[in-house]
Amino acid sequence: MASNTFGNILKITTWGESHGKAVGVVIDGCPAGIDLDEACINDALAKRAPGQSAFTSPRKEPDCADIYSGVYEGKTTGAPIAIIIPNRDVDSSKYESIKHLMRPGHANYTYQKKYGVFDHRGGGRASARETACRVAAGAVAQQLLKATGIQVFASLDAVGGCQAQHFDAKALEQSPIFCADAAAEIRMIDAITQAKAEGDSLGGAVAFRVLNMPVGLGDPVYEKLEANLAKAMMSMPASKGFEIGEGFAAAGMQGSSHNDAFVEGDALMASNHAGGTLGGISTGLPLLGRVAFKPTSSIQKAQDTVDQEGRAQRFQLPEGSRHDPCVAIRAVPVVKAMCQLVLADAILMNRCAKLQVV
Amino acid sequence: MASNTFGNILKITTWGESHGKAVGVVIDGCPAGIDLDEACINDALAKRAPGQSAFTSPRKEPDCADIYSGVYEGKTTGAPIAIIIPNRDVDSSKYESIKHLMRPGHANYTYQKKYGVFDHRGGGRASARETACRVAAGAVAQQLLKATGIQVFASLDAVGGCQAQHFDAKALEQSPIFCADAAAEIRMIDAITQAKAEGDSLGGAVAFRVLNMPVGLGDPVYEKLEANLAKAMMSMPASKGFEIGEGFAAAGMQGSSHNDAFVEGDALMASNHAGGTLGGISTGLPLLGRVAFKPTSSIQKAQDTVDQEGRAQRFQLPEGSRHDPCVAIRAVPVVKAMCQLVLADAILMNRCAKLQVV
Amino acid sequence: MASNTFGNILKITTWGESHGKAVGVVIDGCPAGIDLDEACINDALAKRAPGQSAFTSPRKEPDCADIYSGVYEGKTTGAPIAIIIPNRDVDSSKYESIKHLMRPGHANYTYQKKYGVFDHRGGGRASARETACRVAAGAVAQQLLKATGIQVFASLDAVGGCQAQHFDAKALEQSPIFCADAAAEIRMIDAITQAKAEGDSLGGAVAFRVLNMPVGLGDPVYEKLEANLAKAMMSMPASKGFEIGEGFAAAGMQGSSHNDAFVEGDALMASNHAGGTLGGISTGLPLLGRVAFKPTSSIQKAQDTVDQEGRAQRFQLPEGSRHDPCVAIRAVPVVKAMCQLVLADAILMNRCAKLQVV
Amino acid sequence: MASNTFGNILKITTWGESHGKAVGVVIDGCPAGIDLDEACINDALAKRAPGQSAFTSPRKEPDCADIYSGVYEGKTTGAPIAIIIPNRDVDSSKYESIKHLMRPGHANYTYQKKYGVFDHRGGGRASARETACRVAAGAVAQQLLKATGIQVFASLDAVGGCQAQHFDAKALEQSPIFCADAAAEIRMIDAITQAKAEGDSLGGAVAFRVLNMPVGLGDPVYEKLEANLAKAMMSMPASKGFEIGEGFAAAGMQGSSHNDAFVEGDALMASNHAGGTLGGISTGLPLLGRVAFKPTSSIQKAQDTVDQEGRAQRFQLPEGSRHDPCVAIRAVPVVKAMCQLVLADAILMNRCAKLQVV
Repeated sequence: MASNTFGNILKITTWGESHGKAVGVVIDGCPAGIDLDEACINDALAKRAPGQSAFTSPRKEPDCADIYSGVYEGKTTGAPIAIIIPNRDVDSSKYESIKHLMRPGHANYTYQKKYGVFDHRGGGRASARETACRVAAGAVAQQLLKATGIQVFASLDAVGGCQAQHFDAKALEQSPIFCADAAAEIRMIDAITQAKAEGDSLGGAVAFRVLNMPVGLGDPVYEKLEANLAKAMMSMPASKGFEIGEGFAAAGMQGSSHNDAFVEGDALMASNHAGGTLGGISTGLPLLGRVAFKPTSSIQKAQDTVDQEGRAQRFQLPEGSRHDPCVAIRAVPVVKAMCQLVLADAILMNRCAKLQVV
Repeated sequence: MASNTFGNILKITTWGESHGKAVGVVIDGCPAGIDLDEACINDALAKRAPGQSAFTSPRKEPDCADIYSGVYEGKTTGAPIAIIIPNRDVDSSKYESIKHLMRPGHANYTYQKKYGVFDHRGGGRASARETACRVAAGAVAQQLLKATGIQVFASLDAVGGCQAQHFDAKALEQSPIFCADAAAEIRMIDAITQAKAEGDSLGGAVAFRVLNMPVGLGDPVYEKLEANLAKAMMSMPASKGFEIGEGFAAAGMQGSSHNDAFVEGDALMASNHAGGTLGGISTGLPLLGRVAFKPTSSIQKAQDTVDQEGRAQRFQLPEGSRHDPCVAIRAVPVVKAMCQLVLADAILMNRCAKLQVV
Repeated sequence: MASNTFGNILKITTWGESHGKAVGVVIDGCPAGIDLDEACINDALAKRAPGQSAFTSPRKEPDCADIYSGVYEGKTTGAPIAIIIPNRDVDSSKYESIKHLMRPGHANYTYQKKYGVFDHRGGGRASARETACRVAAGAVAQQLLKATGIQVFASLDAVGGCQAQHFDAKALEQSPIFCADAAAEIRMIDAITQAKAEGDSLGGAVAFRVLNMPVGLGDPVYEKLEANLAKAMMSMPASKGFEIGEGFAAAGMQGSSHNDAFVEGDALMASNHAGGTLGGISTGLPLLGRVAFKPTSSIQKAQDTVDQEGRAQRFQLPEGSRHDPCVAIRAVPVVKAMCQLVLADAILMNRCAKLQVV
Repeated sequence: MASNTFGNILKITTWGESHGKAVGVVIDGCPAGIDLDEACINDALAKRAPGQSAFTSPRKEPDCADIYSGVYEGKTTGAPIAIIIPNRDVDSSKYESIKHLMRPGHANYTYQKKYGVFDHRGGGRASARETACRVAAGAVAQQLLKATGIQVFASLDAVGGCQAQHFDAKALEQSPIFCADAAAEIRMIDAITQAKAEGDSLGGAVAFRVLNMPVGLGDPVYEKLEANLAKAMMSMPASKGFEIGEGFAAAGMQGSSHNDAFVEGDALMASNHAGGTLGGISTGLPLLGRVAFKPTSSIQKAQDTVDQEGRAQRFQLPEGSRHDPCVAIRAVPVVKAMCQLVLADAILMNRCAKLQVV
């Protein structure tokens, strides 16, 4: 059934395969009167684009979005916004030789079983290429957030056993791997470089952090802010876990240490173990969470597998195949975009919480 | 906006507050011809009910569901199934004395801010009472799953620093705390007993495990199986994290060790690090994941807080207040129910994956 | 699939069969802070209730709604509002004798084929009993509309060849058949009385008229105001047609006579052939339309039919069966309710039309 | 809010303005394994295209659809199908001179008020150009219907006081105005020619007729087949009314003449006043209904209006403006497409009606 739409009031519908003519997104439900042009979308896409450093895939896609509708004289009109991103550097010939093999960690087996057909070239809808559309849509959501002062950050939090210890927005801005801790960044880069040299890949965790949050976002019981964030993140390729606040660490805590005490004054609470929500509604404190990503499934090492007939085979990626040694790096701008989309949607939903509009 | 409905084709809509006349659920989209009576719902509710052991709240609710519609001569008719569960043991007088205080870890602050009103008696919609409806609906979903052979388990996986090491379905059946590892259970009970004695509470983790999974469930890209499971779990009260397969551990792994190699024969894969999905679609291997729960926010210890006017106050639960020392225990049947609902919905969605119905 | 929910932001989910314990509705997405009590719902239900005059079914249902949730101290809380209406005067024994026959004009044949089962007692979900829930929900929507000044009327416009010629709100208030034209009412009553005496039934048309409309309601292109009104009305039992403005008469007109000229001043337009919308968005002029209803399918005259095995049979309603000679009369409060629901939903949707909330 | 999506399981999302680069549609939820290529879409588009005869707008758009995604080796893959239709013959310079005037019968007033902005060039989203996307999507739905044997027809039923008296599929195929009655066609053409000569326009009615209907399509109570058809049709530009079966004529009938008697044998019923549904579910008899369209709002005659500041003005279309004398003609393929979409969606929905898939 229809499953390529995300959001409640602000809805995105993405389409396109990695080896087709283009990928695209229709953003429906965006209020009229928001400043929007291709530049702000392309800035966001540039962050996600591969081929930027030694740490991401050398596939070159200077992603360039075209806005086809919904904008008039630089402002949104309330009509659906169609954004199309051409696929420029498509080369599917390399995949011919491995067409008949199940790729370990990839979705060709499940797509084949579910749909009876699979576009083997580059992963079809399972390709990370789809996330370019999320980033483009996130940039539109960001234009709506701008009016509220909300600030959304995403950063590489852990990779190859290295954990970022603190958050420095400046370090983040300059980091080729989106790490907000300059010291950790060095060790992370070492780990990635080594994995790459070994023809292997690494998993990683991405943190999101939202400042200047208003109180009141999130709609219990099924549209809780963390429920929608979790769905947003777990719909991304390669994501394996989601946390808000203390997350799994909370499972080992006591109530007396986990509860955030309310305090007099602007701070509201003495701590933020909850990560910015209570009962699924934002408290106004920073929204804090993490997303886990598995190691890139495509590695240069040979692996055991089977062919379409189920017979044991050896799988070896064609020489010159282009892949990220750590998919979590390129996931950072996508996590940010999904945050932006969930928050923009929550802001619109919240307009209907009370009889009097606020 | 409307936010009390969950599901795509099989949809549940829950309603009711903990201190009102009843809570209830409307299950819409359930196919006709499924065996259903009150007994199978009440069996599931009995697992969730408090007052069963020393480890859960002594509030006595022999929850008893009434089916009001959608069933005729013991079978579903295709009409919406309304289930109503009366609130029997309601005593809100105790809450009068703390009415004006923000309860640490509770949602009265955010509800008050969002809606301009809060039913202070027992938590309103933020109460775990709402989850009784999820369990009742899960029991209906289970009747649909029965025909497929799918088996859904949920168990207490970790609490107070104790981690279950293996899964024994028999141990699970006999455990008062839903632990599937008899040795770990003893240590868990000790930890809970001690926390209770100290007037404190503990967090915990709940594992879900689904056997006899068909291949093909889950609809990319936004209705991926793990995305819907994550939303289902993160919409539960007190949940703080969700994992599938290796989860956050995957963030520290290498591709060569995380990838599950396809193998000849019925086993399909040599391992199941992925936890039963690839590309958001079930592989047919067991579906494995975990949900983190924070410690119960209601504790007997005094805590700092503020009143409605924002002035510093001391918060002390009224004597005789009834609460669970570890909310994760009672979350187990709810995690199971949410699994059942997501899977039943995915099965129906999957009927539209191909031109030919399968 | 799930099909018992109506609305976008303000959503109603109805449940229940005519011969079960009760029917009910969950209203989700209603903003907090709206005055609501059982009295305003029961006032609306009293209008729809049968047994009020010689012109409607003698089945006695002093419908009495219970609000089970979502209201605290006389105001909505933002939580789902569950309303339950017990079925008091249920007598299904009479239907035993005709259980095996297809009822002409009724839905037992199609339900049987679609679901493989049919609750033959009184029509199940196809019964007009379901509309009590729509009326209850409409009364809730009305509380939201009250703040806007919008006034919704519905009236019996045509029956048995008699057409109301003008609209008099006072006449409407006093009419036992909801006719807003006192002269037409007399002829309508004559026609209904005669049909009843003959054991036959009559079709009819219901007009809706909304005054003090704001400009801007309705969301192109698929949530146009008239599109949602049409769906609302055509989802009612026995409805066969929907018109807005000139409706089918427009098909015979010329552009020069149908176009409403804009004029200087408060009137906005010199005429209102459009019926209050342009491009699916309200103009601010009165919203005007009509709904056609077929004659009641249950008549006292004997009719040809077949039994469950498809053999020709003669169908005769059991003596003492209770039915309306003209279903359009009792449809009037339901048309009004569906109008209220569509408008309340449109008002909430419109809060997201612009960046700046209005 | 998001309002450019139609359908439940098979969902279409349309985008684009008449004077932008292109219009497009994303079709999500289409099962895998359906034959699809651009030719079958372009065939359908050719029927809708203007510039074909003297009776429709001379604007030349040899509409040519590009399939951007969701099709692999000539078959659908289960992924979203993006179709883009470039706008080739765009000339908005003519509209400059009337930019500041309210156009009688048009939506610039309501769009301006609702969104605070209006793309005055050619009507933006209110333009009939949007319906090209519906036709393209209808062609995709048709590929799904093909497997079932369902045959969908739409025809011009009435215009300028002329009413088609019978349905002849061959006449329909050859008629430049989609009339299925060759005798009526002549009079209709006369009426249209005369209106055009006078610089005026005509309203019209379009009939839909579906043969080889299966029994069981439509989901009570809110997704009834006629409810979804009504919404589909009333969301089209210029539509003012919808009927199924006898429609408004039913309002003047008696139950004894309107009820369709069930009969022995394959015919099922002796008549089809109901128009093919009972209780919102298809009976298997032909699905019959009509849609009313207002006269084209754009006429060559001068009209009274106001400008943006509300001052009285005279409105005269720029010379050489291109418009249809009767919008109902070009609505015929769109009515057909909306029928196809509603039916394809209903077929998929019906896969979940029973425990056992059928």
